[in-house]
Amino acid sequence: MQPGQMAYDRASTVFSPDGRLFQVEYALQAIQMGGTAVAVTYDTGIVFVAYRNLPVSALAEAGSIEKSFAIDTGLGCVTAGLIADSRVLVEFLRVEAQRHRLTYGEAVPYTLLGHSLGTLLQQYTQFGGTRPFAVSLLLGGFRGRVPGLLELDPSGATIGWKAYAIGRNRRAVADYLEEKMPERPTEEAAFKLAVGGVAEGSPTPFQPEALDVAILEPDAELRRLPTAEIARRVQGMPFIGSPERKNASR
Amino acid sequence: MQPGQMAYDRASTVFSPDGRLFQVEYALQAIQMGGTAVAVTYDTGIVFVAYRNLPVSALAEAGSIEKSFAIDTGLGCVTAGLIADSRVLVEFLRVEAQRHRLTYGEAVPYTLLGHSLGTLLQQYTQFGGTRPFAVSLLLGGFRGRVPGLLELDPSGATIGWKAYAIGRNRRAVADYLEEKMPERPTEEAAFKLAVGGVAEGSPTPFQPEALDVAILEPDAELRRLPTAEIARRVQGMPFIGSPERKNASR
Amino acid sequence: MQPGQMAYDRASTVFSPDGRLFQVEYALQAIQMGGTAVAVTYDTGIVFVAYRNLPVSALAEAGSIEKSFAIDTGLGCVTAGLIADSRVLVEFLRVEAQRHRLTYGEAVPYTLLGHSLGTLLQQYTQFGGTRPFAVSLLLGGFRGRVPGLLELDPSGATIGWKAYAIGRNRRAVADYLEEKMPERPTEEAAFKLAVGGVAEGSPTPFQPEALDVAILEPDAELRRLPTAEIARRVQGMPFIGSPERKNASR
Amino acid sequence: MQPGQMAYDRASTVFSPDGRLFQVEYALQAIQMGGTAVAVTYDTGIVFVAYRNLPVSALAEAGSIEKSFAIDTGLGCVTAGLIADSRVLVEFLRVEAQRHRLTYGEAVPYTLLGHSLGTLLQQYTQFGGTRPFAVSLLLGGFRGRVPGLLELDPSGATIGWKAYAIGRNRRAVADYLEEKMPERPTEEAAFKLAVGGVAEGSPTPFQPEALDVAILEPDAELRRLPTAEIARRVQGMPFIGSPERKNASR
Amino acid sequence: MQPGQMAYDRASTVFSPDGRLFQVEYALQAIQMGGTAVAVTYDTGIVFVAYRNLPVSALAEAGSIEKSFAIDTGLGCVTAGLIADSRVLVEFLRVEAQRHRLTYGEAVPYTLLGHSLGTLLQQYTQFGGTRPFAVSLLLGGFRGRVPGLLELDPSGATIGWKAYAIGRNRRAVADYLEEKMPERPTEEAAFKLAVGGVAEGSPTPFQPEALDVAILEPDAELRRLPTAEIARRVQGMPFIGSPERKNASR
Amino acid sequence: MQPGQMAYDRASTVFSPDGRLFQVEYALQAIQMGGTAVAVTYDTGIVFVAYRNLPVSALAEAGSIEKSFAIDTGLGCVTAGLIADSRVLVEFLRVEAQRHRLTYGEAVPYTLLGHSLGTLLQQYTQFGGTRPFAVSLLLGGFRGRVPGLLELDPSGATIGWKAYAIGRNRRAVADYLEEKMPERPTEEAAFKLAVGGVAEGSPTPFQPEALDVAILEPDAELRRLPTAEIARRVQGMPFIGSPERKNASR
Amino acid sequence: MQPGQMAYDRASTVFSPDGRLFQVEYALQAIQMGGTAVAVTYDTGIVFVAYRNLPVSALAEAGSIEKSFAIDTGLGCVTAGLIADSRVLVEFLRVEAQRHRLTYGEAVPYTLLGHSLGTLLQQYTQFGGTRPFAVSLLLGGFRGRVPGLLELDPSGATIGWKAYAIGRNRRAVADYLEEKMPERPTEEAAFKLAVGGVAEGSPTPFQPEALDVAILEPDAELRRLPTAEIARRVQGMPFIGSPERKNASR
Repeated sequence: MQPGQMAYDRASTVFSPDGRLFQVEYALQAIQMGGTAVAVTYDTGIVFVAYRNLPVSALAEAGSIEKSFAIDTGLGCVTAGLIADSRVLVEFLRVEAQRHRLTYGEAVPYTLLGHSLGTLLQQYTQFGGTRPFAVSLLLGGFRGRVPGLLELDPSGATIGWKAYAIGRNRRAVADYLEEKMPERPTEEAAFKLAVGGVAEGSPTPFQPEALDVAILEPDAELRRLPTAEIARRVQGMPFIGSPERKNASR
Repeated sequence: MQPGQMAYDRASTVFSPDGRLFQVEYALQAIQMGGTAVAVTYDTGIVFVAYRNLPVSALAEAGSIEKSFAIDTGLGCVTAGLIADSRVLVEFLRVEAQRHRLTYGEAVPYTLLGHSLGTLLQQYTQFGGTRPFAVSLLLGGFRGRVPGLLELDPSGATIGWKAYAIGRNRRAVADYLEEKMPERPTEEAAFKLAVGGVAEGSPTPFQPEALDVAILEPDAELRRLPTAEIARRVQGMPFIGSPERKNASR
Repeated sequence: MQPGQMAYDRASTVFSPDGRLFQVEYALQAIQMGGTAVAVTYDTGIVFVAYRNLPVSALAEAGSIEKSFAIDTGLGCVTAGLIADSRVLVEFLRVEAQRHRLTYGEAVPYTLLGHSLGTLLQQYTQFGGTRPFAVSLLLGGFRGRVPGLLELDPSGATIGWKAYAIGRNRRAVADYLEEKMPERPTEEAAFKLAVGGVAEGSPTPFQPEALDVAILEPDAELRRLPTAEIARRVQGMPFIGSPERKNASR
Repeated sequence: MQPGQMAYDRASTVFSPDGRLFQVEYALQAIQMGGTAVAVTYDTGIVFVAYRNLPVSALAEAGSIEKSFAIDTGLGCVTAGLIADSRVLVEFLRVEAQRHRLTYGEAVPYTLLGHSLGTLLQQYTQFGGTRPFAVSLLLGGFRGRVPGLLELDPSGATIGWKAYAIGRNRRAVADYLEEKMPERPTEEAAFKLAVGGVAEGSPTPFQPEALDVAILEPDAELRRLPTAEIARRVQGMPFIGSPERKNASR
Repeated sequence: MQPGQMAYDRASTVFSPDGRLFQVEYALQAIQMGGTAVAVTYDTGIVFVAYRNLPVSALAEAGSIEKSFAIDTGLGCVTAGLIADSRVLVEFLRVEAQRHRLTYGEAVPYTLLGHSLGTLLQQYTQFGGTRPFAVSLLLGGFRGRVPGLLELDPSGATIGWKAYAIGRNRRAVADYLEEKMPERPTEEAAFKLAVGGVAEGSPTPFQPEALDVAILEPDAELRRLPTAEIARRVQGMPFIGSPERKNASR
Repeated sequence: MQPGQMAYDRASTVFSPDGRLFQVEYALQAIQMGGTAVAVTYDTGIVFVAYRNLPVSALAEAGSIEKSFAIDTGLGCVTAGLIADSRVLVEFLRVEAQRHRLTYGEAVPYTLLGHSLGTLLQQYTQFGGTRPFAVSLLLGGFRGRVPGLLELDPSGATIGWKAYAIGRNRRAVADYLEEKMPERPTEEAAFKLAVGGVAEGSPTPFQPEALDVAILEPDAELRRLPTAEIARRVQGMPFIGSPERKNASR
Repeated sequence: MQPGQMAYDRASTVFSPDGRLFQVEYALQAIQMGGTAVAVTYDTGIVFVAYRNLPVSALAEAGSIEKSFAIDTGLGCVTAGLIADSRVLVEFLRVEAQRHRLTYGEAVPYTLLGHSLGTLLQQYTQFGGTRPFAVSLLLGGFRGRVPGLLELDPSGATIGWKAYAIGRNRRAVADYLEEKMPERPTEEAAFKLAVGGVAEGSPTPFQPEALDVAILEPDAELRRLPTAEIARRVQGMPFIGSPERKNASR
């Protein structure tokens, strides 16, 4: 922490002398504390894979911790950060998508939807009495039938990607993705790359049920893979650890 | 307490430099001060058992301290934390359930209802001039006839469970539940497991009337067991202490 | 006072690190500064007795300091704490009772009415720009013809009692009540027990006119006893002091 | 001042650890700085006498400093404290009295009116962004033809009196009143007692025009006595000083 | 400044422990920094004289600095304090006077109008987020054909006068007025007394154009005297200095 | 800075103990940092001349920095201070002028318009959550065909002038104007005087395009002189420097 | 940082003693941290060139980081500063342009549109509970067929330019532009100058895809150049570096 930083870090409505908004930076820090999430585009779709920070207990319903969300036909996203903040943003995306559909009679372009969400996120960095959302989000959709991804962070900024990572160790995972990304990946290659990326971001091996995997194709709802299917497809991958008891530190 | 923590812990609208919301953590601490509550699913229903932090006095009406609440047909919950905060949330759940029933002509799915409550809880962690609710809650319902539980905490996060504990010593009790949980428990087994869990969470033996027990089955309202029935069913269990005078520390 | 307590005790919207709401605790402290109030149920009714903290002056109208209040037919209460705060709550109870009567064509159950008041009290412990009410209250009513009491404190929590005390030295008085409470008290026994409880809570002997006594029976308004009747019924009780001049310290 | 008091004395919305509201106490202090006011009931009416803190100048219009106010037929009051705060409260009383008259077709009972004012005063002790009213007030009226007085202070508390004092040295004056009050005073006796009480509260002798005197009888408006009449009736009383120049310290 | 004063002097919503409102006192201090203003009643009217704190420059339009204002027929005032604050209050008086005229078909009594203004001023001493008005004001009018004056200060208090002074050195000027006031002054005597009072309040001699003079008679608008007329009438008075350059310190 | 000044200088809603509003004084300081502006009346009109604080660059469009503004026929102004604050005030003047014209069917008198603006400015010195406008303004208009000027500053105070200066070194420039002002200046003399005043206020010589010159005559819109005409008319004046590069310090 | 600066730099609603608004200055500092943007007018149009601060990754979609924006036919802009703040302002410009078109049936003049935006920006420098926008913006349009630029900064001030730079090193780049600007540049010359300006502002060489280039001509929408076209046109320019990996520091 820089000297004097504490004088400017309690509100989104205050710039530091060097023009920084510390509360936005601290929200990014909160996101780093959660699991890694990765999205990879392939020729005809997008694979979303996220690590579920779930308690290691046979009694927990793994499926109840959702990291990937269907928004509308051909629209989906994966999130990293605070669970309850994510829920609010996903609800916003769903309502916006329906509003556009009702108004214009067609699905909302994912970039337009992403910019609407970016504008919402920006409000929480400029007005007092609130805090930024502690969520990063990869929004996926199609331009025609070409898949695309838009990354959103707590500042409300947006960047487009072919493949990217959010959450824990996102920079290392992004480097991994860039290095390993094939020219024109198939769904299988994209799946493997995405799972590999999440493994890269995780400090320890994990069980298949720790993965939330979803696949988005045009003209269809996001398809979340059942645990059994995930288990089958990741079989033999090196990063799948043997079950071990870990303290559920939510 | 970490050095510097006090600079960031007075409002839900301020992240600490490492991305924490201390007021939410302090609300969890308030919940730890209350009694343990446990919910266990079994083949056709859910058992809710909670320890009532009631004054040890022959003049107190044990039944007036409610920890388990009927929400709608096939919907119920058990709470831990501040009594008055719980009442506000239960009232919200009941109104939401009726609103859904009136709008769609059918009972609200418990997961949908839980997410609505999670969104309410999240508001109190993002906007100023208020504090988070100091309540954890296990919401029970049915998907078809399959029982399920959703845990909510002050952050608004939700996790699904087959059996779980909230309130005092919840982690130790959760371990106990995981260890003892039969593959397919009967109502009797679930009842015994839940009561055992509450006993595990209690530092001292207690009387049967300290227990709030309720059973939820599909197509029926939550049934709160009369004290006499509880007394009969727990007879002979080792954790039932002999009556002793304890200082009523509400 | 604990070290660091002052950092968290200025607003109801801030939890301390151990999950306490100090402003609510300070409101309870304000209530301790006022006179003791006791309510005792008997077979067919409830006796309310309260010590009036009135200036010792022949010119004061003792009857103007009201501690017990009629709410509706078969509904009444006794309060301890700030006089003006009590008036606001009693007004709320009366309006709520009328609203229920007009809506449903019947008297409001006293437990339902108590929970409404508890919800009001809770608001003042969660939202900024205000303070909790410094009032504890024993609300009496009937379930059928069975008398019951609900205690409310500044947090909004509620507990049911057969007999209880609020205000100065409430814990000692409650012990006294528990010890002396007959199995099935008559009105006379309840009256004696309640007056004895108030005497237990008072540091000095007092005159009969210092007592506010009221009796609630089903299907009738609360009946506040005239001073003469009180004087007659307490004659010979040991705690009735001889008149002495005391500094009117309101 | 107690150690630590300054931490809790800036707002009516904050209790001190021992349950005090310092801003209310400071408002009482402001009232102590103004002149004494006394009201005495007699067989058929009420005498109000107040010391006017008026600048000693032949150019001042003594009559412009009003301390006693007509509210409605058979309703009046005398105030002590900040002049402008008093005006606001008197205006409230007048409007409330008219509202009651218009709604119910009869004069408002003075106790009911006093409780309405008490509720108004209480608001200013519980909500932020404001301060309590720095006014004490003796409200007079009749129950049938029996005169009665209700005292209100900044907390909103109310007490009934046969005779009482507010403002400077109110406790000493109240003792004086209690000691000298005849069993059944006539108007003349009440007048003498009230003027004597005000003299008791004043540190120096004063001129007749320093007195604001008003008499309330049933079925009539408050009658404020002309200066000449006051001068005539107080002639020979020992406390009437010879005119002397005093610094007008408003 | 007293020790500890700074703890209580930032807001009108905070009493000091001895019951003072420092912001109101500081507003009075602001008024002391402006020029003296005097009003003197005579048999059939009122003379208002004020010292204009105008820049000493041949290019300034003396007439543009108004200190006396017509409110309605037979109603006028003179002000001391912040120019822009005065404008707001005068505008309030004019609107109130018209509202009364439209509602009741007659001119508003000046005392009633003054009390309305007093109530407005009081609001700014009780509610947060604002400051008191830094204006004192002498409001003149007629009861029948008898002239009268009402003084208002930032607290909202009102006192009636035959002649009085506000602004710089108001106490010394008030003493001067009391000493010199004839029994039944003519307009000429009142004019001379008022101008003399302003001169008493001014630390240095001044030019005639520094005076704002206005005369109010019943059934007529306030008449502001042209500079030429003022110059003629003050000729030979000792306090009229020779023109000298002074630093325009607004 | 005086000792203790910092305790009172953060808000317009707080008086200092000597009755000052520091935020208003600091706004005046902001105005001093901008260029000088001068207005001079002559027999049939008004000349406005202002120094444009424009970046010295051949690429800047000098005309885009407006210091003088047309308000309505025969109404115009020149401003000094923050550019964006000025724009808001000019917009207010234009809307007010149109509102008056639409309501009364005639142009608004410039003094009336000035007082409306003064009232707006005053609001920003009395209410919290905002700051005063950092603008001084010379508003010009005609009473019949006689030209007049009204000066407004951040406090909302107004003074009339025949000629005056605002902005950098306004007091020295005002002295210059008073000294050099002819008895009845022609337009040419007024132009020369105004340009000379601005030069007096400027620490360095400047180019003709640094001048914003406008002329107001009755029954016409304000006429802003083209740069070429300004250059021609100022030719040979001593204060016109040779072009030099200066750091654009906005 | 000056001594005492920290006392005045937390809110836009507070002037420092020397009349500065530090939060506005800190917002300018935030803008300096982003990439340089340049706009250059030529005979029939305007070239906008901006450096995209994009992560150096083959997986990023360069086109997703927009720095230049179409507003309406013949209206466009380039921005520097926070991405999400820019989006809000561009959305404002687009809505304003449509509103004008719908109301008046013609395109909005770019200077009028710029002043509307300036007024919006000013609000965020005067009212509490918010922060200034951290955006500078060059708005381009046509007066007839003559191209023009208006620069806006966080204060809301506006200046017109033939060519100008915002963002990193804007002063050095502006000097470069002034020095190199031809008398009447062609589109090709303007393009080269603008690209050269951006290179001047960049501390390191960069790839063609780091450039966002757009061209505005009258009667047409802003045309953003495809990356391929940019690459072709900048070929051989010295500042185009070889690809190197740089840490994506958003």
